[in-house]
Amino acid sequence: MKLIRFGNEGQEKPGVLIDDKRYDVSGFIPDYNEAFFETGGLEKLKAIVDEHGTNLPTVADDERLGSPVARPSKILCIGLNYADHAKETNAPIPPEPVIFMKSTTAMVGPDDSVVIPKNSVKTDWEVELAFVIGKKASYVDEADAADYIAGYVLHNDVSEREFQLERNGTWDKGKGCDTFAPLGPFLATADEIADDNNLNLWLDVNGKRMQTGNTKTFIFKIPFLISYVSQFMTLLPGDVISTGTPAGVGLGFNPPVYLKPGDVIDLGVDGLGTQKQVVKAYGE
Amino acid sequence: MKLIRFGNEGQEKPGVLIDDKRYDVSGFIPDYNEAFFETGGLEKLKAIVDEHGTNLPTVADDERLGSPVARPSKILCIGLNYADHAKETNAPIPPEPVIFMKSTTAMVGPDDSVVIPKNSVKTDWEVELAFVIGKKASYVDEADAADYIAGYVLHNDVSEREFQLERNGTWDKGKGCDTFAPLGPFLATADEIADDNNLNLWLDVNGKRMQTGNTKTFIFKIPFLISYVSQFMTLLPGDVISTGTPAGVGLGFNPPVYLKPGDVIDLGVDGLGTQKQVVKAYGE
Repeated sequence: MKLIRFGNEGQEKPGVLIDDKRYDVSGFIPDYNEAFFETGGLEKLKAIVDEHGTNLPTVADDERLGSPVARPSKILCIGLNYADHAKETNAPIPPEPVIFMKSTTAMVGPDDSVVIPKNSVKTDWEVELAFVIGKKASYVDEADAADYIAGYVLHNDVSEREFQLERNGTWDKGKGCDTFAPLGPFLATADEIADDNNLNLWLDVNGKRMQTGNTKTFIFKIPFLISYVSQFMTLLPGDVISTGTPAGVGLGFNPPVYLKPGDVIDLGVDGLGTQKQVVKAYGE
Repeated sequence: MKLIRFGNEGQEKPGVLIDDKRYDVSGFIPDYNEAFFETGGLEKLKAIVDEHGTNLPTVADDERLGSPVARPSKILCIGLNYADHAKETNAPIPPEPVIFMKSTTAMVGPDDSVVIPKNSVKTDWEVELAFVIGKKASYVDEADAADYIAGYVLHNDVSEREFQLERNGTWDKGKGCDTFAPLGPFLATADEIADDNNLNLWLDVNGKRMQTGNTKTFIFKIPFLISYVSQFMTLLPGDVISTGTPAGVGLGFNPPVYLKPGDVIDLGVDGLGTQKQVVKAYGE
């Protein structure tokens, strides 16, 4: 299944895509939130789709899409998980995963504007494969980790490099600005993705290809990441984990290239659709 | 007012302290969560207490207390905000605040056990003054910052030093383990604390005084912190911000001293009550 959330920001309703057409399931399901994933929501949703299918109420093609999951307890990100990206940022290959957190207030829909924060001069892009946790996870064995994945979602891990690297602190300062986590267009349930370790990713700025990668070059694969992260904190149903970005971010150019108002970002991951964001100045 | 939450873990109900006695307000207020703070909950609660006072249903003195605020969108912490603590950990005085995040799954009540994670050898203590955000905050001027404080709460920012400092990544890895954020016993509303820049803090392990400090030695004061943090991310009503710890953590001893099963931690901040935690091994 492909889950969407549609409507104005903060008032999104749950829906599904069937053969690329949008349908409203808000008559049956309150939202795609922690309670939904925790209480067998995906199975209930499947039964609803099986029973009603294209008889469900339709949603207009031009309706805004929000993040396909409601605000989770946390967004965790893995840093430097592609060897080529570590190299371009002059960072060593990490001996174990780098974890950082993104404020959940950064979440927006897949095609919402990306806003350059006040006083920012180094706002950058990062196409990533993210996944959503389906059940509470603590000290998970790598062999069991696949059972904890509810599904996959495209994520632009927008990052302010000065805030992240030059402002005295952890990376969190440059990762959680408003609009820095476009998610969607849809959550693909785990059964929709045959091999999460062989997905192409790409990102264009103003029509020029900047990032190209494939998850087969992950330094740390997803089952290992789930097991690893769950040694340090408990993951809750609905939590989002983003798996890192391949080479081609603005920071990696010589000289670096950063986003400016009016830029257009297009990005995608195999099987997870595409995003398009127009970059705006704060207050514009 | 002094707000408490009481009952079994995950099923806490809201209450208040009146002259140190506990009263149940769950008949009027669903919980002390984001919606409560966002919709004038503190004013409503004051009206309820003014009208009903000690006629409210009582709560037994031996009932478990949970965190006095429900799970927020985030727990932010300020690192190295006391010069003496920066010195003991061999860190320079930061030119601007260090920010890190703590997984909200770490929250527990003030007297719940602190659990040493699996594979941990360096679990440490940190008495801190935390405060709770009362309204949505983005790019707040320092002069207006006091208006954004709902109240204050005692916090033990329990930290695993190896996970935090030696495991390749941001500090987040060593800060968000389960039980690493005891909060409470109560949230004191802002009017209860005459001067948040002159509060004594202390922490004992097994009856021995380890930490002594006063918030007057803050490197960065609370109004500055609110303004500063709100430049990087939006703060939501109910969010918890912890202001750093004074000298005397286990990492600062030579050789370092870490927690072991059976240890008892007592801590307090002027006007915010005390906590007592028994340390347990994982699975004990």
